[in-house]
Amino acid sequence: MTIIDTLLGYLEEDAPSGDLTSEAIIPGGECVARITAKCRGTIAGLDEATELMEHLGISVKPQVSDGDQVESGTVVLEVWGDARKVLLAERTVLNIIGRMSGIATKTHWVIEQVRGVNPDVRIASTRKTAPGMRVLDKKAVVLGGGEPHRYSLSDGVLIKDNHLALVPIDVAIRRARDFSGYKKIEVEADTVEDAVKAAKCGADIILLDNMAPDEVRTALAELRRRGLRDSVMVEVSGRIAEESVMEYAATGVDVISMGALTHTVRNFDVGLEVVKGGGSSAM
Amino acid sequence: MTIIDTLLGYLEEDAPSGDLTSEAIIPGGECVARITAKCRGTIAGLDEATELMEHLGISVKPQVSDGDQVESGTVVLEVWGDARKVLLAERTVLNIIGRMSGIATKTHWVIEQVRGVNPDVRIASTRKTAPGMRVLDKKAVVLGGGEPHRYSLSDGVLIKDNHLALVPIDVAIRRARDFSGYKKIEVEADTVEDAVKAAKCGADIILLDNMAPDEVRTALAELRRRGLRDSVMVEVSGRIAEESVMEYAATGVDVISMGALTHTVRNFDVGLEVVKGGGSSAM
Amino acid sequence: MTIIDTLLGYLEEDAPSGDLTSEAIIPGGECVARITAKCRGTIAGLDEATELMEHLGISVKPQVSDGDQVESGTVVLEVWGDARKVLLAERTVLNIIGRMSGIATKTHWVIEQVRGVNPDVRIASTRKTAPGMRVLDKKAVVLGGGEPHRYSLSDGVLIKDNHLALVPIDVAIRRARDFSGYKKIEVEADTVEDAVKAAKCGADIILLDNMAPDEVRTALAELRRRGLRDSVMVEVSGRIAEESVMEYAATGVDVISMGALTHTVRNFDVGLEVVKGGGSSAM
Amino acid sequence: MTIIDTLLGYLEEDAPSGDLTSEAIIPGGECVARITAKCRGTIAGLDEATELMEHLGISVKPQVSDGDQVESGTVVLEVWGDARKVLLAERTVLNIIGRMSGIATKTHWVIEQVRGVNPDVRIASTRKTAPGMRVLDKKAVVLGGGEPHRYSLSDGVLIKDNHLALVPIDVAIRRARDFSGYKKIEVEADTVEDAVKAAKCGADIILLDNMAPDEVRTALAELRRRGLRDSVMVEVSGRIAEESVMEYAATGVDVISMGALTHTVRNFDVGLEVVKGGGSSAM
Amino acid sequence: MTIIDTLLGYLEEDAPSGDLTSEAIIPGGECVARITAKCRGTIAGLDEATELMEHLGISVKPQVSDGDQVESGTVVLEVWGDARKVLLAERTVLNIIGRMSGIATKTHWVIEQVRGVNPDVRIASTRKTAPGMRVLDKKAVVLGGGEPHRYSLSDGVLIKDNHLALVPIDVAIRRARDFSGYKKIEVEADTVEDAVKAAKCGADIILLDNMAPDEVRTALAELRRRGLRDSVMVEVSGRIAEESVMEYAATGVDVISMGALTHTVRNFDVGLEVVKGGGSSAM
Amino acid sequence: MTIIDTLLGYLEEDAPSGDLTSEAIIPGGECVARITAKCRGTIAGLDEATELMEHLGISVKPQVSDGDQVESGTVVLEVWGDARKVLLAERTVLNIIGRMSGIATKTHWVIEQVRGVNPDVRIASTRKTAPGMRVLDKKAVVLGGGEPHRYSLSDGVLIKDNHLALVPIDVAIRRARDFSGYKKIEVEADTVEDAVKAAKCGADIILLDNMAPDEVRTALAELRRRGLRDSVMVEVSGRIAEESVMEYAATGVDVISMGALTHTVRNFDVGLEVVKGGGSSAM
Repeated sequence: MTIIDTLLGYLEEDAPSGDLTSEAIIPGGECVARITAKCRGTIAGLDEATELMEHLGISVKPQVSDGDQVESGTVVLEVWGDARKVLLAERTVLNIIGRMSGIATKTHWVIEQVRGVNPDVRIASTRKTAPGMRVLDKKAVVLGGGEPHRYSLSDGVLIKDNHLALVPIDVAIRRARDFSGYKKIEVEADTVEDAVKAAKCGADIILLDNMAPDEVRTALAELRRRGLRDSVMVEVSGRIAEESVMEYAATGVDVISMGALTHTVRNFDVGLEVVKGGGSSAM
Repeated sequence: MTIIDTLLGYLEEDAPSGDLTSEAIIPGGECVARITAKCRGTIAGLDEATELMEHLGISVKPQVSDGDQVESGTVVLEVWGDARKVLLAERTVLNIIGRMSGIATKTHWVIEQVRGVNPDVRIASTRKTAPGMRVLDKKAVVLGGGEPHRYSLSDGVLIKDNHLALVPIDVAIRRARDFSGYKKIEVEADTVEDAVKAAKCGADIILLDNMAPDEVRTALAELRRRGLRDSVMVEVSGRIAEESVMEYAATGVDVISMGALTHTVRNFDVGLEVVKGGGSSAM
Repeated sequence: MTIIDTLLGYLEEDAPSGDLTSEAIIPGGECVARITAKCRGTIAGLDEATELMEHLGISVKPQVSDGDQVESGTVVLEVWGDARKVLLAERTVLNIIGRMSGIATKTHWVIEQVRGVNPDVRIASTRKTAPGMRVLDKKAVVLGGGEPHRYSLSDGVLIKDNHLALVPIDVAIRRARDFSGYKKIEVEADTVEDAVKAAKCGADIILLDNMAPDEVRTALAELRRRGLRDSVMVEVSGRIAEESVMEYAATGVDVISMGALTHTVRNFDVGLEVVKGGGSSAM
Repeated sequence: MTIIDTLLGYLEEDAPSGDLTSEAIIPGGECVARITAKCRGTIAGLDEATELMEHLGISVKPQVSDGDQVESGTVVLEVWGDARKVLLAERTVLNIIGRMSGIATKTHWVIEQVRGVNPDVRIASTRKTAPGMRVLDKKAVVLGGGEPHRYSLSDGVLIKDNHLALVPIDVAIRRARDFSGYKKIEVEADTVEDAVKAAKCGADIILLDNMAPDEVRTALAELRRRGLRDSVMVEVSGRIAEESVMEYAATGVDVISMGALTHTVRNFDVGLEVVKGGGSSAM
Repeated sequence: MTIIDTLLGYLEEDAPSGDLTSEAIIPGGECVARITAKCRGTIAGLDEATELMEHLGISVKPQVSDGDQVESGTVVLEVWGDARKVLLAERTVLNIIGRMSGIATKTHWVIEQVRGVNPDVRIASTRKTAPGMRVLDKKAVVLGGGEPHRYSLSDGVLIKDNHLALVPIDVAIRRARDFSGYKKIEVEADTVEDAVKAAKCGADIILLDNMAPDEVRTALAELRRRGLRDSVMVEVSGRIAEESVMEYAATGVDVISMGALTHTVRNFDVGLEVVKGGGSSAM
Repeated sequence: MTIIDTLLGYLEEDAPSGDLTSEAIIPGGECVARITAKCRGTIAGLDEATELMEHLGISVKPQVSDGDQVESGTVVLEVWGDARKVLLAERTVLNIIGRMSGIATKTHWVIEQVRGVNPDVRIASTRKTAPGMRVLDKKAVVLGGGEPHRYSLSDGVLIKDNHLALVPIDVAIRRARDFSGYKKIEVEADTVEDAVKAAKCGADIILLDNMAPDEVRTALAELRRRGLRDSVMVEVSGRIAEESVMEYAATGVDVISMGALTHTVRNFDVGLEVVKGGGSSAM
């Protein structure tokens, strides 16, 4: 991937006219620093941190890999180079690792939980990401073991209630098929009846939105009863949090979509510490 | 502010080659839609939502203002225009409002809490924002009643432990003064001794980092004892969460810095519903 | 859609430091102009032309719609406004209409042909578009009645020979399924055996690449014989031109992919003529 | 030239959120690949392919040079590096080489033809390039032996019929001279009378637009008769295709302008084949 | 011209995260303001100021036109709109007007001077502009009555000493002719001999660089003596300042090139004054 | 700092479609060149020149450092590499060094002068920089020994007359304090009374604008008389030029702000000379 422009944009945001403090007080010279996890979880963002720092001419030696489980205290990256540049990149790099690892950790944790009751269920993310972070948020979900689902409006067909307020469901599905045969067609259903109708009209994926677990069970049973269960993938979504995900997993759905994986993120704590300075006589 | 390029960048991220579903199934025509809060809190992001949608030619009528307290069910924006464009903007707009309102709500809640024990204390954000969201994250903090603190490395001097690993504190403060007389100089102190030393060397702001509330009290007392308390502003920071913020507020510090305001955000739930379609005979 | 930045980029390319001729000789003032088709075919690019010119403050009145069949001599757009701006936009606008209409016309023509022998076959474009023109090239294909297929590497899974040189086919398909359940999986097959293998491994779409029509027939027969024909969509590709497309259509495949729709374009001739100047006394 | 941003823009267009297929199925590791011409002609775009791939960290070894004549089967580039990155760049690189070589090949072919009847005539391109491809389209023309003519509205004065609808020819030429003495002034003439008038008014270049070869001969004779032929360069343009170019060349004009060189391009067929994978134990 | 992106870039530079002061203290509401010249000279930059402010939704009413002579005290623009936006744009707009008017004023002044001794001589600018200001610097020169000369390396052929250090002059001129017949060929000459040689080899323009006025006279005489004077335009350049320009004008050259027009600019003093606030009850 | 995008933007401005002359006449090959100061002063811009040229693959060896005093004739950079690239970068690099060194030289000269009469006074720049050059203009001021002051509207609070036309001074200062405790608050005062009032209301810095030196003395005396002098920093501004700066320095103010440091720049003369070509047999 060529994510470097995005990464440089993040850096620019943090230093539109340079780093005042370093320019004022750091006369130049090299330093060595370490980035250390301060909690346990699934690490993510090291590739991006490395790419950004190497672009600045900083040397980076990863100590673990993206997707690895780390403990509090694990050194994840060792870096060395011009002290001003290390300090310039510090916050941007930590913000990236902190958010991505937070997402990866949560995804991993949810998957560990649900696999106990439903070994085949997938945990999917949504497009409810932080604006400007889509690709990295999705990558963190994948590193945590999750399903990325749509990256954008451009890469999948999902017919939602707002579309159905404008076009009848059968027309909508037919038009989508006519438009392209390369896309699976996913249709949102708010009731059991809608779910059945969508499946009959040829939807590939049924998204049961905002249904209670019992209603989901009814919908699945009804689809089975009519011989439609095997021809569709069934997804549930709608404010599913860590607390309720197990219940949904137990219904036997194929995918559980959780906006919370990326819209309600607990930061993964990580810090950068300069361990040695003084590479220049000027310091 | 001229935030429109940033907003268009967010939209581009969600639709790099257009909105497949709408292009496939929505034949054109107008619609009316409403954006509704689905929880209570401090609303934010309406200005940005309005600017982005108006840029696309959608008409927008705000029903409340950024910074207002809203209840679950409050309609915050009414919009009407080309149905494809409304659906194109939907997720981007909701993500912006969801995140910004989440930040504003949390900030407002924290301030309500701490004002009970310390009416003068300020609650500040840090640079631990979602990459690409800095300006909007900070704006949300201000709408919630918080203190923005530094927007970037370019707009303030903050001498942290990593700088002090490279340059002695007295030299650092002198160099910062020599560099510019227009900036307050903030110095991070990890111990009471460092806090006193920084104050003596002329720091304007002392940042007590990762100290327990008792240690903060000791530092404040020591500064007072030496007649240095009035000449410096004292800030605390370091993993301060909703649970511990009251204790810090009670110590009598001037500012409490909370990275969690922007790095660990609970999304504010908000939805867009098409309430009327059919403006075009083609539909 | 927010294509305006792309359109302005095209304009910038044609006038990095302004329009020397107009600046030198046109003193200002309004003009009226017409854009006229100079051949017959399927018109495309009028939406983009309109968006760009309106962005410059030029008034535009479309006389026909994108996707319409036009004759040589048909006026497609009437425009009026500042003469310098009309002349500034002229070439960019004509290049967009010329290329997009060329693509739409060719696509439409091919579809007209093949429908005679195979009413259900689809004609698909590929990613062999002019660099920098992807979204518009694909839109022109759709306006001509074609199937857009993948817009980019980000929006579909297509396992090609180069992937299969690195990973065995069964592993590749399994990994793709594990990665996401939302995507149809397309697999390229260079031989009948590979086609059967891909279908057995669960591919949703089989791309028969560089096969002669007879070989395509054999592959379809073999898939039918093994009861796999109905569970897969079959696409052919590989240097299929106007001359050979009928033969492929007659084989009974579902989709014919033609890179030539967008990589070997015959420009649709279109011109802009100023019909009235003199809105300013200065002229 | 610093074309890298343009090239990265092309890549971004082909992978706005990464390469789904490779991310799903290629676990990492190195590969070796070859780019091979699949038809004969004048190769172009190798410099750009090299610059883009080297920017991604891929090693590239050109086997021939831009502008060389190649046969079908000629290996033009050998590349090796991270397999995911090679596959990421594949289509973008092939599209660039395919289009540029198509243009260079056509230009070269036309020049070979016309040189037989008129050894001094130049073959010029116009601004009828694919939007977003101007610099590369023009470079391909030069590699094929052609004359680039204007790169944009900013780099030359060309007074066309639309200008002359707004300003009389003598005023237009005088104003252009007054504006800058550094530019040759080219004037479009649709009739012999206009051609003579333009030459008398001091045009440096006369563009005979949409004239039949006979009319061109008459214009040249008339200019000669009045002693104006030597002081002007004479160019012809207007839907001149491979079929008619010889006839125009034989008239004795100085330059033949062909929009078709860049607006009606036959793609040069070129492919990338992975010849060895497996550099990583993970594969 | 579509200069708006450049103008917005200037604004972004002055407010990467908004206008702290206005956000802190101006609660909203409208204001009326005036931009007033505080010295006399040739005004420039009003078009750009207008375009930028209108883009922000500020109403603008120009009181004079770009290129007009103004006195100290002349109101050049009246503006009204959202007070925060007016103050946001203030410095950017004044910097643009200040620099462009400074350049226009100097150019106009020089031309007034030299016309007394040589009514036909042109005063040309060079590419020695402020980086990032090329188009506006050149436009200001034209508004002051000057000749823009090359806008960039892409729009003209100028063979300088550094080229001649690499390629002999006759080869260089021949190659330039072969490359394109549409460009005048300018050649730098440091000695009278070089000037004659360049003219003989077919240069269209001779640039006498760093010659004293007497040497220029000798060169002109020598060109005349050999019958070459009429076939070339002669330009002088090389640290020509207001003091020495008259002497060069008197030699009879065609063009005097002055880098100082754009590289050594005296700012034109201009200010913005809010004349009425209070459009909002909140203020 | 990651200034490279800005630098590449400057280069793009000078060569939107490449360097016509070099492409026409330089067949390739290496060269060696020297950049030499042609006047004496404080050199600046070498870091930027180096970064840009190294980005293009040119090797650079600085002979002096930014901030050094140089004589006319001092070689400041030696460079070698592809001749076309050296010539491509030449003008952009010289424009950067020429402007930045001009600013550094002037700043240094002013500081040398004023230090004689007031050893503690600081010389500050303003935001009156060339649009698009802010960061580099400010960096040049710092290299010359000056105080950068605000980089943008985003990094400091300065309440000016236009704000005070909208909000009373006491309200303005209170709001600014409430907004953020991290910023020094600077208030512009046009009269002695206003200066006293601002100091009483708690301003940290008083900007005496457009006052004659005598009036400045009165203001300072009045502040002293009321015991307010020590609690505020006092700055003067308003058309202060090289001629009047000494008088202001002698008043005892803390800072003298000079827009002229960056808005009225005398270019520092610097040239690039190719000293050896011929690295390629083709030349």
